[in-house]
Amino acid sequence: MAAVALVQGASRGLGLDFCRYLLLKKSPAAVIATCRNPDAAQHLAELSAQHAGRLTVLKMDVNKEDDIKRAAESVKSAFGKVDLIINSSAMLHPSGKGETSLRDVSAQGTISTLVTNTVGPLVMAKYFVPLLQKGTGAFGQQPPEKAKQHSGIIVNMTARVGSIGDNVLGGWYSYRMSKAALNMATRNLSIELGRGQSKIVCVSLHPGTVNTDLSRPYHRNVPKDKLFSTEYSVQCLMNIIDNLNIDKTGKAYAWDSYEIPW
Amino acid sequence: MAAVALVQGASRGLGLDFCRYLLLKKSPAAVIATCRNPDAAQHLAELSAQHAGRLTVLKMDVNKEDDIKRAAESVKSAFGKVDLIINSSAMLHPSGKGETSLRDVSAQGTISTLVTNTVGPLVMAKYFVPLLQKGTGAFGQQPPEKAKQHSGIIVNMTARVGSIGDNVLGGWYSYRMSKAALNMATRNLSIELGRGQSKIVCVSLHPGTVNTDLSRPYHRNVPKDKLFSTEYSVQCLMNIIDNLNIDKTGKAYAWDSYEIPW
Repeated sequence: MAAVALVQGASRGLGLDFCRYLLLKKSPAAVIATCRNPDAAQHLAELSAQHAGRLTVLKMDVNKEDDIKRAAESVKSAFGKVDLIINSSAMLHPSGKGETSLRDVSAQGTISTLVTNTVGPLVMAKYFVPLLQKGTGAFGQQPPEKAKQHSGIIVNMTARVGSIGDNVLGGWYSYRMSKAALNMATRNLSIELGRGQSKIVCVSLHPGTVNTDLSRPYHRNVPKDKLFSTEYSVQCLMNIIDNLNIDKTGKAYAWDSYEIPW
Repeated sequence: MAAVALVQGASRGLGLDFCRYLLLKKSPAAVIATCRNPDAAQHLAELSAQHAGRLTVLKMDVNKEDDIKRAAESVKSAFGKVDLIINSSAMLHPSGKGETSLRDVSAQGTISTLVTNTVGPLVMAKYFVPLLQKGTGAFGQQPPEKAKQHSGIIVNMTARVGSIGDNVLGGWYSYRMSKAALNMATRNLSIELGRGQSKIVCVSLHPGTVNTDLSRPYHRNVPKDKLFSTEYSVQCLMNIIDNLNIDKTGKAYAWDSYEIPW
């Protein structure tokens, strides 16, 4: 059976380019793209037309547990398994700008950021783990020892600013906190899902500073050679994913494959 | 002017015993105890009667930004400054039990835990930092160099299970994630508030496994000599607080003064 990959938050930015890459470079893999509003996802419609029968677009708001549950049921009926999930949707802050200082903090802004960036990927795992455990290990590297082989992979998109130990600048309270908590989710998932017969590799990946809507307000502060295109970032991250195995689970890696401290 | 300490989440458990300790051992410090329902806080009423004029009980639900704002205004009118804030309220999970596995995870359970354990202390900082900046450095150690002296101290109660690097057992998703995110808040606050004239020391403290309602369902799994009384834990933590200075800011310490990795 062909590989099945699911990209959550796929209508634009990195998520969209993960879909593009998987369709172009991982044929005949089936790609499932989820987003809040498929009717407005023009780029996904174009990709779907270009790759007839390979791209399935599913409506899913990662803030709604029922949406996630329904999407998992739909994927189960259509595919019966998933080999790779990439949780890509994220916000910097509902205002579009990270908090420069404590003055900018609001309970509601922090809660919204945590719900989308942190709770969403955790609840994704809850409903999709049974399908990942039916995965056939189509992504990553499988070592010869059967006991060390994995069935599926979960990738949570993190950010270097989500590293507590690496934090020397401060600011961006909500985003940083959401990614630190997401890294804990990654770590916890890697422990629970690394046991038993059907192992799931779970990692956090940092894409670099990428030319997307999320980072747009800050582009002028980024040196040109440090502002990656989504294509370049996805290529680097897929290279990491292609080399994942169970020994690499439960960690955070940057686009250059180097581990990021917690 | 006498020292002013505020304990958030003071009606029971560690918070209550911090108040007791401060009243007994830090005379003539004024103590402000906040809790959701002062009318039902019998132990605080008793303490108030025993220490006439030294204990102020304020109604505050840390989940409500307006409550926090109002409490800060009331403290400003009455005291004009705060020297020490201890954020003590926390929940393991709304169900009273940490998630044993992913099956037990729910979006709403995780959100509630994050709101109380993580967003609450962050929003506390937002409204109380101006008062801490007016603090007179009555807690901790002041080095002779004026440039290194601090005005106030923020203590966020964390937990060793909130350390991502230390996590080898998994489980307790919501609680672990909330404490990892809180540690990021501590770190971020220490950076922003460690600059300038009126420095605020900000640390995360782990109380050990303490005999409180939060840990009650797990007491039978804890060796007797590892289950601390609130009195013992508070004594250890106040010993750490008494020795804090700006060089120790932005870190997480356990009851035994050892630093905890992120």
